[in-house]
Amino acid sequence: MTGNPLSAAQKAAVLASVEALREHNPLVQCLTNKVVAAFTANALLAAGAAPAMIDTPSESFDFATVADAVLVNAGTPSEEQFEGMRHAIAGATTAGVPWVLDPVAAGSLKRRKKFYRQKMQLDPTVIRGNASEIAALAKEGGGGRGTDATQSVEVSVPAALKLNKKTGAIIAMSGPVDIIVSEAGITRIEGGHPLLQKVTGTGCFLGALCAAYAGAANKSELVPHLAVVAAHAHASAAGTRAGAQFPRQPGSFAVAFLDALYELDGPDILELVEISHEDSTASEE
Amino acid sequence: MTGNPLSAAQKAAVLASVEALREHNPLVQCLTNKVVAAFTANALLAAGAAPAMIDTPSESFDFATVADAVLVNAGTPSEEQFEGMRHAIAGATTAGVPWVLDPVAAGSLKRRKKFYRQKMQLDPTVIRGNASEIAALAKEGGGGRGTDATQSVEVSVPAALKLNKKTGAIIAMSGPVDIIVSEAGITRIEGGHPLLQKVTGTGCFLGALCAAYAGAANKSELVPHLAVVAAHAHASAAGTRAGAQFPRQPGSFAVAFLDALYELDGPDILELVEISHEDSTASEE
Amino acid sequence: MTGNPLSAAQKAAVLASVEALREHNPLVQCLTNKVVAAFTANALLAAGAAPAMIDTPSESFDFATVADAVLVNAGTPSEEQFEGMRHAIAGATTAGVPWVLDPVAAGSLKRRKKFYRQKMQLDPTVIRGNASEIAALAKEGGGGRGTDATQSVEVSVPAALKLNKKTGAIIAMSGPVDIIVSEAGITRIEGGHPLLQKVTGTGCFLGALCAAYAGAANKSELVPHLAVVAAHAHASAAGTRAGAQFPRQPGSFAVAFLDALYELDGPDILELVEISHEDSTASEE
Repeated sequence: MTGNPLSAAQKAAVLASVEALREHNPLVQCLTNKVVAAFTANALLAAGAAPAMIDTPSESFDFATVADAVLVNAGTPSEEQFEGMRHAIAGATTAGVPWVLDPVAAGSLKRRKKFYRQKMQLDPTVIRGNASEIAALAKEGGGGRGTDATQSVEVSVPAALKLNKKTGAIIAMSGPVDIIVSEAGITRIEGGHPLLQKVTGTGCFLGALCAAYAGAANKSELVPHLAVVAAHAHASAAGTRAGAQFPRQPGSFAVAFLDALYELDGPDILELVEISHEDSTASEE
Repeated sequence: MTGNPLSAAQKAAVLASVEALREHNPLVQCLTNKVVAAFTANALLAAGAAPAMIDTPSESFDFATVADAVLVNAGTPSEEQFEGMRHAIAGATTAGVPWVLDPVAAGSLKRRKKFYRQKMQLDPTVIRGNASEIAALAKEGGGGRGTDATQSVEVSVPAALKLNKKTGAIIAMSGPVDIIVSEAGITRIEGGHPLLQKVTGTGCFLGALCAAYAGAANKSELVPHLAVVAAHAHASAAGTRAGAQFPRQPGSFAVAFLDALYELDGPDILELVEISHEDSTASEE
Repeated sequence: MTGNPLSAAQKAAVLASVEALREHNPLVQCLTNKVVAAFTANALLAAGAAPAMIDTPSESFDFATVADAVLVNAGTPSEEQFEGMRHAIAGATTAGVPWVLDPVAAGSLKRRKKFYRQKMQLDPTVIRGNASEIAALAKEGGGGRGTDATQSVEVSVPAALKLNKKTGAIIAMSGPVDIIVSEAGITRIEGGHPLLQKVTGTGCFLGALCAAYAGAANKSELVPHLAVVAAHAHASAAGTRAGAQFPRQPGSFAVAFLDALYELDGPDILELVEISHEDSTASEE
C-alpha cells in the first residue's frame, strides 16, 4: 500500500480509541434504514457501544442533544424519517455532538443526493460511503448500482480530498482497502474478507461504528481521524477473523463477525489488519 | 432471593403454562418496533407461538379481535403505527383478547410516556418493562438511557405494586432478576446470562412472549400471573442454556438462544432458573 | 408425486437457470415487509443475487426500470410503501422488467386482497404464495390464519390454473410440496425441511428468489417456468441440506440455510430435491 506504517504514536492512538470505546460505551442514536437496523444494533452492542434507534420527528432533536454520537443513513427513507433526520442533525449540531453522514446510494438516486448535499454543509464529523457515493457528493464521476461500488476506492482519493475541503468532515471510503481522508492525512486500512460483501449491513454498520468511535474519542479528547481509522480497523479485523472460521459461508460468517467484534481488543486489531499513513499534501503533489 | 420456593401447585401451573403454549401455538399480533420485528417473530416461532406482525391502521382492529393475544411495543413508532396501536388495543379490549403493553423508553421520552399513560388505562393484561420504565409509569423515579435500565429492579417493587393497583395489570420488570407483581403476589425469577444484554430485542421479545403465554393461558383457563412467570422463566432458562455454549460471544449466543427457546420443555425450564414467591401483602409491610 | 421425472432437457434448463443466476448476479428491487427485509437481502446475497430494498414513492419507478427484476410483497404495508409499490410496478411494466407479486395474507385481510386483485392485472411474471393466498386470488376457498396456509397445496391446483389463465402469470404455491403452474405445465418440487416453518421470512424470500431467477432467465433467454422451478428447487435443497446439520433447531437452521443457499450448485440442487412434471391439460381432465 501507499504510505508508511503507522508510527508508534499513531498506533498508541488507535489503541487508545479502542479502549475509549469500551470504557465509554457511547450512546449512538442511529437513524438508519430498516434493512440493517437490527444488524447495526447488534454489531454496535458487540463492538462495545450502546445503540438507540430513535428516528421519530418529535423525539430526534432532543435525543440527539443527549446522545454521544448520531448516525444518519438514508438507505430506506420514509418522509417521516427524513424529517426525523433533519431534527437529529439540528440537535447534534446544536449540542456539539459528533454526527456521521452515510450517503447511501448518492451515486444512483437523485433525490437522496440532493438531501445529502444539503446536509453535508451542516458540519458532519464524518462522511462514510463507498467510492461511488463519495465521488457523487464531490461531483466527480458518479454511477453506482444500488449500494454497490462501481468505482475503485484508490481512484476516488482526489474526490475525497475535495469533499473534505468542502465540508471539513473526515471522509471515509470503504472497499477492498478502506481509505480515511482528512487534514490529518490519508490512511489506508487493509483487511476484512470478501464474505463481508455477502452480509447485508456490514457497510452501513461501519458508519454507525464511526459514530461510536467519534463519540468515544470526543469524550476522551482523542484525535478524530485516528478514531475513524480505529473504527475501520476494528470492523476489518473482525472480518479477517470471521473469514478464518469454517464453514466459510455467509450465514456462519455473519455470526462469527459479531463474535469477533466483541472478542477483539486493540492489539488483536492491529495484528489482523495492515494500516499505512501519508500526509495529505504528499498525495496532492 | 426474597420469598419462598414455588409450591408444588405453583410449579405444576408453570409446567401447565409451557404445555399450553406448545399445545395452542397462540396467534400473537405484534405491533412492535422495526429493529426487533424479525427477532421477535423468530423467537416466538422457536418458543412455540405463531407471530403475525400486523400493524396497519386499517387492519389492526379486525386482526386483534381474532388474535389470541396482542403486543404493543412503541420502540420506533411512526404516526401510522401509533394509529395502528390505537386500533389494535380497541380490537383486543372489545373482543376480550389479552394484550401486553411494553412501554419502551417511558423513562426518557416524554411523548411516549403520554401515550403509555393513556393506554395503560385500557386494561392491559400485562405491562412489561425494565425498572426505569415501570417507575416512570408509576410516577416514581424516572431516568433511563434509551432502553437501558438505570434503576434497580428490587428498588422498583413499590412502583410496580402501585402500577398494578392503578391499572389492574400484571406488572413484569426485567433485569438481572425478573420480578412479576400482581394481586397474586410477587414472584422473582433468576437466571439468564449477561450476554442477553448484547443481543438487541431480547427484552422486547419478553413482552411478546408474555402475550403468547397470556393467550395460551386464556385458552386453557390457567392463572395469568403464573403464565407470565412461565414466560420469563422460559426466556431466562434459554439465556442460561445459551450462555453455557461456546464460543460465549454475542453472535453465537443469539443463535443458541433461539435454539434453546425451541428445545427446552417445562421441566428443563424449572431446572435452569430459580423462582421464589411471596404474597403481595408481605412486601407492603 | 404426480407427474413424470424431469426430462434431460428440463434438467438442463434448471441447471442453466442456476448458472444464469450466478453469472448475472441480478439486481432485484425488493419492496417487501419490514419483518423479512434483512433476511431477504441476506438470502438473496447468499444465493447469488444483488438485492436493493428501494421502496420510496419518489424512487421506485425509476429504479424499477433499471433493475433486473422487482418483488412486491405487502406483508406490512404503510400507505407510503403501497404508493411505492404502485410506482415500482408501473416502472417494471413500462421497461419490460420481470416482476413478482407475493400476495401475503390475501386469504385473511380484505384490504390487501383488493390491492392484489388490482395489481395482478398488471402482468406479473410470477404470483407466489401459499395455497390459501392463491385460492383467495382465484376466488376459490379462502381462509388462512395470518401467513399460515390452512389450505392444502394439492387441492389448490385448479385455483392456480384458473389464476394463471386470468393473469398469464406463472403461479407458484409453496407448502410441503411446492407446485409451479403455467401454460408450460405443472411442476412439483419436494424437499425442504419442517424447520423452514420456524424461521420467519423463508416464504417471503422465495418470492424474492423467484424474482432473481426470473431476472437472470430474462437475460439469458431461458424458459421462465423452469427458472421459477429452479428458484424453488434451490431454496428447497438449501432447506434439506440445513436440516441435515446439528443441532436441528431453528437458530442454527437459519444460519445453515444461508450457508447452503451459497454453497449449493446446480447438480447439488437436483440431487437434494425431487421434481416431477406434467402437462397442464393432464390435470384438467
